Amino acid sequence: MVEAIRRAAAGTASSALQLGIGDDCAILAPPPGNDLLVTTDFSLEGRHFRRDWHPARSIGHRTLARGLSDLAAMGAHPLAAFLSLALPRSVAANPRWLSGFLDGLLALAQRHNVPLAGGDTAESPSDHVLADIVLLGTAPSGTALRRSGARPGDAIYVSGRLGGAAAELEALGRNPKLFRSATTNDRHPHLFPQPRLATGQALRRRGLATACIDLSDGLSMDLAHLCTASGVAAEVRAAALPRSPLLRGMSPDAARHALLHGGEDYELLFTASPKIAMPKTLGGVPLTRIGTVLRASQRRPQIVTLAANGRRAALVPGGWEHFS
Amino acid sequence: MVEAIRRAAAGTASSALQLGIGDDCAILAPPPGNDLLVTTDFSLEGRHFRRDWHPARSIGHRTLARGLSDLAAMGAHPLAAFLSLALPRSVAANPRWLSGFLDGLLALAQRHNVPLAGGDTAESPSDHVLADIVLLGTAPSGTALRRSGARPGDAIYVSGRLGGAAAELEALGRNPKLFRSATTNDRHPHLFPQPRLATGQALRRRGLATACIDLSDGLSMDLAHLCTASGVAAEVRAAALPRSPLLRGMSPDAARHALLHGGEDYELLFTASPKIAMPKTLGGVPLTRIGTVLRASQRRPQIVTLAANGRRAALVPGGWEHFS
Repeated sequence: MVEAIRRAAAGTASSALQLGIGDDCAILAPPPGNDLLVTTDFSLEGRHFRRDWHPARSIGHRTLARGLSDLAAMGAHPLAAFLSLALPRSVAANPRWLSGFLDGLLALAQRHNVPLAGGDTAESPSDHVLADIVLLGTAPSGTALRRSGARPGDAIYVSGRLGGAAAELEALGRNPKLFRSATTNDRHPHLFPQPRLATGQALRRRGLATACIDLSDGLSMDLAHLCTASGVAAEVRAAALPRSPLLRGMSPDAARHALLHGGEDYELLFTASPKIAMPKTLGGVPLTRIGTVLRASQRRPQIVTLAANGRRAALVPGGWEHFS
Repeated sequence: MVEAIRRAAAGTASSALQLGIGDDCAILAPPPGNDLLVTTDFSLEGRHFRRDWHPARSIGHRTLARGLSDLAAMGAHPLAAFLSLALPRSVAANPRWLSGFLDGLLALAQRHNVPLAGGDTAESPSDHVLADIVLLGTAPSGTALRRSGARPGDAIYVSGRLGGAAAELEALGRNPKLFRSATTNDRHPHLFPQPRLATGQALRRRGLATACIDLSDGLSMDLAHLCTASGVAAEVRAAALPRSPLLRGMSPDAARHALLHGGEDYELLFTASPKIAMPKTLGGVPLTRIGTVLRASQRRPQIVTLAANGRRAALVPGGWEHFS
């Protein structure tokens, strides 16, 4: 397995990588004047994916996308990735699975010029594929975007469209066979999410955002994380939310749930001073204003939705709206 | 679980750590003029430890020790650690296990001034505790020790004593109860191995070593790794090997096997020019010359042992000696 990974990784290189797979550590030379950003993310079978639902290419792609999206949220440039991978004996005996997984992971790595610089391998102690991805990135010292900078009065934006990953996951559960031959060339927001690195980097470089987070847990949950880190509250105009076209195939209730709470869209959620003239698109994706940052108050919920008819409802992270 | 880890990690800090657990990424400011070293290591229940054998403190200690030992082998200074940890529901329901695990991990982290700067948590998809540790370290640019610098004629050294971890593992398997209350204050080479950071750093700083590796897989295996990376062969004087006192409790055959092939001693194996007057101790541990680097040759095995009576035997990585 180590040899298969080493061969596959040889196609990814970088001037910052002094020594890759094969010694006790990898050696990197980060560009001077930069902070180093680090994130690790599990991708565990039965928690983050199912082998009977997800094609191997998708699992490899998603494993790396989770880490790249964390870098995107800070406006960072990827420096290197490290993969720890444990396969059950039955999976290790089938080279096609590993090769599909690595194809998916490395195609995304190459698109973003990130070398696979090392990691670890083991035999899984159960029948589950276990992966842990580490991403290192860089940003000029002191400039990385954080969750904690939102101020009352700031506008709230999202990149791209929401709810598509949840809608596709539902369709995948209904009929996995339909997705066997899905590739990254298609539009598959759940199987092949696209981390918004160019968007995050442009937000940071142009000083457009006061706070930023990636949408991994869903809008309601991640907006709560941003508000808590910034010590603020938020109001979201439900009608303004940019809807994925995949929501059209769902019932209105299911579509609303996917829009507000569906996870893994890997779009960026950020805040900006209301004085800034925000561009309509950034890094190739549309930006949409969805609400406003409010002062935190004991007397109202942290996040409220504002309907077209003027009614407000508390938006509870993870899945419920309570009308107030 | 995230909160328990965050609280525990708050006791570990560092001037290089700009932002720890709680955002999309941690932010580090590595010292200028340094290379960055990165290593990741799985610690999977049923592969690397058993919950019915190893106390939780030992599992936490060993998880971090594996990564620190990789840094020691390159002569690096630890910069930060990242922990990905998945617990089965039954283990997460018992706060004592997690607290023991974190105590063991953080006691070792504090001893070496390495902050726990982030990671990931999940529910394990099986009944196995799953951990993956990431260590970042630094070394002045271009000075990190590698496996690949050994030259014919170099002397081969090890730090500390060998075989103790294998001997203790055997005793642990016979009677785990004896080890329930073992602590890091005792001498427990398997349960609480001590990564040789000071030794590795001194080797690098003083320019003493031509190549270095840590003894994780056992002498025969790791010496083969070093020889392969350097393109050389080696001769080991069996009588010169520094024996752990724990080998006294074993049969001669079992003791010889533990000495030559026993894994996880986490001592350093290194080579040095024969012209160097090697100190007797370095970083608080004894150094012992155990053999000589030879030119690689098709006509002899990569590694041979030389007995006191002059007989040579091929040392096969992982467990066998074939007399030649």
